[in-house]
Amino acid sequence: MTRMTTIGLIGRSSRPGETLPANLLEAAEAVGKAVAKAGAALVTGGTGGVMEASSRGAKTAGGLTVGFLPYGDADKANGYCDLVFPTGMGTIRNILTARCCHSLIMLGGGVGTLNELTVAYDAGVPVVALEGCGGWSDRLRETLYDGCYLDERRVLPVSFAATPEEAVEIALSRADEPRTGSKLEALTGWAGG
Amino acid sequence: MTRMTTIGLIGRSSRPGETLPANLLEAAEAVGKAVAKAGAALVTGGTGGVMEASSRGAKTAGGLTVGFLPYGDADKANGYCDLVFPTGMGTIRNILTARCCHSLIMLGGGVGTLNELTVAYDAGVPVVALEGCGGWSDRLRETLYDGCYLDERRVLPVSFAATPEEAVEIALSRADEPRTGSKLEALTGWAGG
Amino acid sequence: MTRMTTIGLIGRSSRPGETLPANLLEAAEAVGKAVAKAGAALVTGGTGGVMEASSRGAKTAGGLTVGFLPYGDADKANGYCDLVFPTGMGTIRNILTARCCHSLIMLGGGVGTLNELTVAYDAGVPVVALEGCGGWSDRLRETLYDGCYLDERRVLPVSFAATPEEAVEIALSRADEPRTGSKLEALTGWAGG
Amino acid sequence: MTRMTTIGLIGRSSRPGETLPANLLEAAEAVGKAVAKAGAALVTGGTGGVMEASSRGAKTAGGLTVGFLPYGDADKANGYCDLVFPTGMGTIRNILTARCCHSLIMLGGGVGTLNELTVAYDAGVPVVALEGCGGWSDRLRETLYDGCYLDERRVLPVSFAATPEEAVEIALSRADEPRTGSKLEALTGWAGG
Repeated sequence: MTRMTTIGLIGRSSRPGETLPANLLEAAEAVGKAVAKAGAALVTGGTGGVMEASSRGAKTAGGLTVGFLPYGDADKANGYCDLVFPTGMGTIRNILTARCCHSLIMLGGGVGTLNELTVAYDAGVPVVALEGCGGWSDRLRETLYDGCYLDERRVLPVSFAATPEEAVEIALSRADEPRTGSKLEALTGWAGG
Repeated sequence: MTRMTTIGLIGRSSRPGETLPANLLEAAEAVGKAVAKAGAALVTGGTGGVMEASSRGAKTAGGLTVGFLPYGDADKANGYCDLVFPTGMGTIRNILTARCCHSLIMLGGGVGTLNELTVAYDAGVPVVALEGCGGWSDRLRETLYDGCYLDERRVLPVSFAATPEEAVEIALSRADEPRTGSKLEALTGWAGG
Repeated sequence: MTRMTTIGLIGRSSRPGETLPANLLEAAEAVGKAVAKAGAALVTGGTGGVMEASSRGAKTAGGLTVGFLPYGDADKANGYCDLVFPTGMGTIRNILTARCCHSLIMLGGGVGTLNELTVAYDAGVPVVALEGCGGWSDRLRETLYDGCYLDERRVLPVSFAATPEEAVEIALSRADEPRTGSKLEALTGWAGG
Repeated sequence: MTRMTTIGLIGRSSRPGETLPANLLEAAEAVGKAVAKAGAALVTGGTGGVMEASSRGAKTAGGLTVGFLPYGDADKANGYCDLVFPTGMGTIRNILTARCCHSLIMLGGGVGTLNELTVAYDAGVPVVALEGCGGWSDRLRETLYDGCYLDERRVLPVSFAATPEEAVEIALSRADEPRTGSKLEALTGWAGG
């Protein structure tokens, strides 16, 4: 068996010409390094912001990086992805980044990241929010049910971390959790709401 | 031109054997009636809970109802949909309910509804939350940016309503807003395929 | 129960500035009329060519028309759709036109139509090819297994018709066939999401 | 830049309990080996049949293998995938295998493989059919326009190969062709037909 553990990173992208806060990019790069050192593959949306920074970090540590682009044009990927998949699916590709990894780490982020969080929760993929990065990852404690659940079923808690290394450690420790979301769907034929 | 206005209803579904609160179902039914009386088509996920109640309301008022099922089997639709589309897409069908209508009304709801809210916001589709229904529609005021935005860009405010009739009135008034989200897509180079 | 039968029309679209053969457009319009007269809803991709012509035919006969656009912009629909769904999914929307109807009618068509035919066959949706329209609908007899199957399993024959009225008659008669494709999915463990 | 070339393999899968012809599996394994020796990544649907055989071949030659499952359950992947993505998208995942690689090799195949061929053609991804494997890859010469095109536009020829090594050689030589399909869409706003 050759199967690798896949850790997804979701969070704040950058628009053309925009520079993100240095501490956010440093955190993303440190996450990428720690994922690579653990021997796991890093999966991102393949574009800029925390996705580029984390991929750069993973590559400097000799890791493997994957980018699922919303675009159909592979040339729009950042320069640190070993495998680029130009899905051409627009925001539907969030399904891939959020549902196909063993676990996810969330750094900052706007509505697209919140979307990925809901997809992950629904599919039973554990998410670790790295706090201190701004955006939605800093707002989850105060907005979720009991500070960690996305709905009243309370099936899958969001974890919180204070450092990039801690975030990766938790993400790896939760990588093999059974998929509560998928099981629920299979058992009940229930798909959302 | 024969084009109809489409109003989507998102919110709490029901699991097999579960009974939802009477006030929630009454609100959903009243929304469906008001949509039908206005001559608009009602679009839902086609299954139970608020989706069934609102479709029943629309049919009693002579309206047209559409259901986009997550399942591939049309027999799983409720009995009040004129047009049933068994997408077989699982949660990807949330893209259809949330992105393809002129505007949306939100009644209660868990993580699936929150997912649809993020999809709508990203695509520039206006959402009206009917308060007093429990679930996420009652939590938005306290959790969103400035009480109405899903991210820091603050491009598309969520509206709030106190009665089903007011919700429909606002949804209709916002039905022809230009799609701010789509504009953003155009700027960033994504062509929807 | 208010459920309508849905007949999808797939086939040759038109590029900007292109005029399609008159006999092809007339056949499409006649299909739309016959679908409407039978009380069924007509479902198309919502753009030009045979999709526009068939929708026009359905509207002149008082029918209901639905268009699933590949674009996210509803303004790109033709003027004869009652319900326009701007999916923004690009070619993924072929899943909707091809998998969500009770049966399909195929008029001419290039690679996109051939794609829809494969999707329909895989999902167990019956297809009727109207011959004499050019494109792939005229090539199926000589290219398919036994002149009517898309693979060696031979589970779902393509039907052939010589006139628009016959095509609609066959499509309606096959509308309630059990979904052999979906059954296969059930056996192989895929639950549609 | 760390970007790898990605070669997709599409073709005949196997149903539970079914044994495929030895020559087909040997060809698939040889394709995987040749892809790996060339330093490219092998992308498949991650399940059985030619997908498993080619992945095994790539791993014995030290290559990198990726599997995009139709299922949401990663345990359904074959044992030779380094990276498994359990998309849970059903047949929509054909978009990934067919549209996201630099080029594709086709070995045998039924309706699902024909579907992937249409997706690839539409997106401008070159396909090489290895002849002598049965199924659709042996039927293309006699069924396509001019023996190599999927529609009358004749924009992207299917290539043919007589041996696994030749197939890989052609696939690599065509890996950097400009995406005619995507360009066409961008220029004309035309999306199918």
